[in-house]
Amino acid sequence: MTKSELAAVFAAHQDRYLSEWRRFLEFPSVSADPARAPDCRACADWLAGHLRTLGFTACQVPTRSHPVVFAERPGRPGAPTVLFYGHYDVQPEDPVALWTTPAFTPTLRNGRLYARGAQDNKGQLFAAFKGIEALIAANALGCTLKILVEGDEETGRLALLDVFASGEPNLKADLVMAADTGTVSSGAPTLTMGLRGIVTLTAVLKGPDHDLHSGIHGGRAPNPIHGLSRLVASLHDAEGRVAVAGFYDGVREPTAEERQLANASPFDATWYQRVTGVAPLAGETAYTPVERTGFRPALDLNGIHSGYGGAGSKTIIPSEAMAKVSARLVPGQDPDRILKLIGDHLRRHTPAGFTIDITEPAVGGPAVRVNLDSAPVRLARSVLGELSDEPTAFLWEGASVPILSHLPKVAGGEALLVGFGHEEDNIHAPNESYSIEQFRLGFLYTGLFLSRLAQG
Amino acid sequence: MTKSELAAVFAAHQDRYLSEWRRFLEFPSVSADPARAPDCRACADWLAGHLRTLGFTACQVPTRSHPVVFAERPGRPGAPTVLFYGHYDVQPEDPVALWTTPAFTPTLRNGRLYARGAQDNKGQLFAAFKGIEALIAANALGCTLKILVEGDEETGRLALLDVFASGEPNLKADLVMAADTGTVSSGAPTLTMGLRGIVTLTAVLKGPDHDLHSGIHGGRAPNPIHGLSRLVASLHDAEGRVAVAGFYDGVREPTAEERQLANASPFDATWYQRVTGVAPLAGETAYTPVERTGFRPALDLNGIHSGYGGAGSKTIIPSEAMAKVSARLVPGQDPDRILKLIGDHLRRHTPAGFTIDITEPAVGGPAVRVNLDSAPVRLARSVLGELSDEPTAFLWEGASVPILSHLPKVAGGEALLVGFGHEEDNIHAPNESYSIEQFRLGFLYTGLFLSRLAQG
Repeated sequence: MTKSELAAVFAAHQDRYLSEWRRFLEFPSVSADPARAPDCRACADWLAGHLRTLGFTACQVPTRSHPVVFAERPGRPGAPTVLFYGHYDVQPEDPVALWTTPAFTPTLRNGRLYARGAQDNKGQLFAAFKGIEALIAANALGCTLKILVEGDEETGRLALLDVFASGEPNLKADLVMAADTGTVSSGAPTLTMGLRGIVTLTAVLKGPDHDLHSGIHGGRAPNPIHGLSRLVASLHDAEGRVAVAGFYDGVREPTAEERQLANASPFDATWYQRVTGVAPLAGETAYTPVERTGFRPALDLNGIHSGYGGAGSKTIIPSEAMAKVSARLVPGQDPDRILKLIGDHLRRHTPAGFTIDITEPAVGGPAVRVNLDSAPVRLARSVLGELSDEPTAFLWEGASVPILSHLPKVAGGEALLVGFGHEEDNIHAPNESYSIEQFRLGFLYTGLFLSRLAQG
Repeated sequence: MTKSELAAVFAAHQDRYLSEWRRFLEFPSVSADPARAPDCRACADWLAGHLRTLGFTACQVPTRSHPVVFAERPGRPGAPTVLFYGHYDVQPEDPVALWTTPAFTPTLRNGRLYARGAQDNKGQLFAAFKGIEALIAANALGCTLKILVEGDEETGRLALLDVFASGEPNLKADLVMAADTGTVSSGAPTLTMGLRGIVTLTAVLKGPDHDLHSGIHGGRAPNPIHGLSRLVASLHDAEGRVAVAGFYDGVREPTAEERQLANASPFDATWYQRVTGVAPLAGETAYTPVERTGFRPALDLNGIHSGYGGAGSKTIIPSEAMAKVSARLVPGQDPDRILKLIGDHLRRHTPAGFTIDITEPAVGGPAVRVNLDSAPVRLARSVLGELSDEPTAFLWEGASVPILSHLPKVAGGEALLVGFGHEEDNIHAPNESYSIEQFRLGFLYTGLFLSRLAQG
C-alpha cells in the first residue's frame, strides 16, 4: 500500500479506531497491583479476541504472573517472518489526585487522548495493529506476522523469560519489531539504534556484630561506613572512568558514522541542567554526553544505607553498611562476566577488618544494538523519510529494556525499534496522553514498512 | 569516720537502705517517653523529699524537659564545697520480653538487685547518698555539699544547659563528683581520668533536583552517592588518621605517666574481637588501642543514607545523599573550632556538580580531664587502696558525658569520677542489676572520701 492509500483508510476508519483504542485503555491493567490481576486477564482476553477479528490465530500463554498474548498469521511462502513485541500492562495511576480526568476513562482534549497507557504501550501498540489491519484488509500483508504482547513489562518480573525457556510458542523470526520508544526532543522521526544492558547486585559490608557505641569504640573499631565509602570511591577513577579491572574489555567503540549520527542533534547542557538540576558532568570526559549514555557503559550506586538516619544524632558505629549497585552495559560486555568483575573488585578492595556479602546479583540482560547497515533499518529510514520533512534522528538510548535484550536472540532475528513517543506524553506520570497525530504516524509507519518489507 | 565505723553502719542499716533503694527504682522515670513525664516528676518529688529527710534543703528547678533536683547542706566554715552530680532518669526498658522479672519491680537474686536503673544511675547515686547520710548522722560531713540530680541524662536533651545559663541555683564548688562510671574489666577500683568531648553534624550532598533514571542518565549525571563516598573517604588518610586540616592542632599528648597508667591493664585483642566481632584495627597505628580511645580524638560516620534500600533493585540516581558525622574530642580541641574545621573540609572537598548542606551542627561539649596530681585524686587513690587489695586502675574513657564537659567549668572546680559499675550490670539492656557488694563499695568510698576531704 502507498502512503496515500493508508492515509485514506485512516481517514475513513479513524472514529472506529479511536473507539476501539478507548476500549483497550479502559482496562485498568496495572500489573504491579495484585488486586488488578483480574483486570489484566480481562485485558488479555479482549486483546486476543480483537486480534482474532483481524485474522490472527491467538492464544494466551500462562506465566508465573500475568498471561502473555500470542497471535500469528502466516504470510506468503518465502516472505520474511516478523515478531512484533508489545505490552498490555500499564503503570499504576498514582498520584490519582493529579489527573484532570480519570486515568481509566479515556478523554479526548485538543486532539490528544488522555488515559493511563494512552501512549505506553497500548496507544503505540494499537496504532501498529490498525496499520496491520489495513494491510490485511487490502491483502497487502505478505510477511508472516507473530505478535507477542506481555503483561509484565512494568513490573520487571521478566515473566517472559519462562516462556522463552519453554520454547513454546515458536518465536523464530527474521525481524523483531517494537513500538515502545520515543523520538528525540525535537520530535523528528527517530530510529532507536540501541539500548544499554543492565546487571545489578547488592553488597553488604559487615564489621562489628552489633552496633557499637562510637564514644567507647571510635578510633579503634573499624567503621563499615568508612570502609564502604572507600570501596564505593574505588569503583571510579578521578576522571570518571569505571575503575573495575576488565570492565571496558571488548567494548565496541562507536563507528565514525554512529558518532556523527548520535551527535547530529546537539546536546543542550542548559536544557539538561534545567530539567535535571545538574550539569552533565559525570562519566568519561573523552566522550560527549550523548556518547556517554549511548555508547559507553556506566556503573552507578542506586542506594547506600547504614546506621542512623533520623533527626539529630545517634552516636553509633553501625554493624554493617549496604550498597545497591547497577551497571549499564554496551555491546561487547557479557552480563555474567561484568557481574563477576564487579564482585571480584568489591571483594579484592574490601578493607581489612570487614567481610563483604554480595547478594541478589541479577543478570538483567546484555545491550541491544540495531545494525545501521541492515536492510530493515534502510527500509525504516526510507519510510520515515516519506512521513516527515525532518531528517530522521538516530538515538542510542542509555536505558535498558531487559526483555528486548533477550528477544532478538530467542527469535534469531535482528531488532528494529521505532516509536513516536514524546516527552510531553507524560508516560508513567499523571495525565498520560497520546495525540491522534502520533497515533496516525504509528499507523502509517507500520503499514508502509510491512507493506514494503514483503515486497522487498 | 573510719572504714570499720562505716562498715558497721552499713551492716546495721542494710535492710532499710535496700528498701529505700527499691522505692527509688519503682518509679518508671523513663525520660525519653513523654507518657512517663508524670513518673519522672513523681520520682523527682520523692528524691527531693528524701534528701530533705537527710538534712538538706531541696528544691526542684523546672527545665524545658524534666525537673532538676537541687539540694544543699552548708558545712563547716572554710571546708571545701562539693557538687555531687547524678541523674534520676533511666533508659527505656525495651525489649520488655527479655526481662526475667519486671523492670520496675526490683527483685533480689543472688545478692544482686535487678531493675532498670539498679546501677545507672539510681543505684550508684543512692549508695553515695547513704554514705553521706551516715556521715551526717555521725556529724562527720564537714564540707558544704550541693547535690544536682537531673532527669535528662539519657535523652541527650542537655536541659541542664539552660539551668547553667540562668545562674540559678549557685553551682560553685571546689570539686565536682559523679558516681556514674565503671571499673576496668578486671573489676579493680577505677578512677576515670577523662571523657572525650563530642560534636556532631549532618551533611547532605545534593545533586539532581529529583531522582533520575539511572539508565537514561548513568555515566552523565553526577551521582550523589559517588560524591558522598569520595567525601567521606577524604575524611581519613590511609593510615587511619583524621585528614581534616587542623584537626590535631593543639591536641595534648599523654604524659609518660598517663601512658603507663592507661596501658597498665594490657588490652586483650582476642577478648575485644569476641565481644565486638571486630579486631581493633581502626585509628592511628602509632598508639595502642587503649591510647586511641583515651588520648586521641576520632571522627566517625554514624549514618549514611541515600536512594533505594529495599529488596532487589530500583535503578535510580538519587537526588541527594545524607551523612551523620560525629567527632570525639580530647583536651586541646575546642568544639566550635573542630565543628568549623569539619564543615570547611566537607565544603572544600565537595566534588564538582554537587552542593552541600551542613545542618544540625551540635556542640556537645569539650573533653573532660581529671588532673592526676590534684589533691582530690590523691585522696581518692588512697581511699580506693583501702577498699581493695587490687591496685587502683586509671581509665581514660572514649565516651562522652556532655553535661560533665560543662559542669566543672560552671562550678569552677575540678572533676572526680569514681564509680563501681561492671560490664555484667547490663546497663541500657534487659535485666540491669547492681550487686549489694557494689552498692556497699560506693557507700564506703563516698563516706570515707568525704570524711577525709573535710579533715584535709
